[in-house]
Amino acid sequence: MKLMIAILRKKDCEPVIQALVKDDFRVTRVASTGGFLRQGNVTLLIGTDEDKIESALKIVRTNVEDPDRPEQARATVFVLNVAQFEQL
Amino acid sequence: MKLMIAILRKKDCEPVIQALVKDDFRVTRVASTGGFLRQGNVTLLIGTDEDKIESALKIVRTNVEDPDRPEQARATVFVLNVAQFEQL
Amino acid sequence: MKLMIAILRKKDCEPVIQALVKDDFRVTRVASTGGFLRQGNVTLLIGTDEDKIESALKIVRTNVEDPDRPEQARATVFVLNVAQFEQL
Repeated sequence: MKLMIAILRKKDCEPVIQALVKDDFRVTRVASTGGFLRQGNVTLLIGTDEDKIESALKIVRTNVEDPDRPEQARATVFVLNVAQFEQL
Repeated sequence: MKLMIAILRKKDCEPVIQALVKDDFRVTRVASTGGFLRQGNVTLLIGTDEDKIESALKIVRTNVEDPDRPEQARATVFVLNVAQFEQL
Repeated sequence: MKLMIAILRKKDCEPVIQALVKDDFRVTRVASTGGFLRQGNVTLLIGTDEDKIESALKIVRTNVEDPDRPEQARATVFVLNVAQFEQL
């Protein structure tokens, strides 16, 4: 089990969430702010099996627009190992 | 040290937080939204020693109501290993 | 790659964020609430190389004020290992 934490620009989050949910990923959305320009962004938490991480990354990659500035990332993604996972 | 990330329905978070705090867990609450039905939910961050994880899970389990729909989870919990922990 | 999760009091977050960004750390800010006294606090997500963790910790340490109460922490920091990191 992995926990993917994806930080997206706000304008990209709707298509990304919709595409993830359509492919049966469970997504939790947290409102957040970029530190530098204080732009609103969105942090998604996505718990998934290790073998679906590439599929989730591909969904993110294909659903974010090009950056406004060349040095800007379209999305930043951290994948963490999950020591224990419980659905209660 | 472990970091527990618990995603709860909004209506369950007050009893869960109160029970965790009563047992000396330190809890940070983040407002979040479920991706599918856009229901408000809550993401809790709970840092704790490994040997107290089961106790924290039990508190969550006993303080969430039954789901509204059979396929719905009452809570989703990720436990992560903490490489370094600092209280400044 | 590491993911630092730093929970700060709200009043400390501006100087901490500014100092981190000045030193080229990328910071994502999430509004959060402490469980016990329901004080507004802030959760920062900071992705960074392992060899810059001490530098980031030092920035946090030197930019938070003394606690209001002796038993209160000025900041709580979790450092997590990142299994995979992508900037899209």
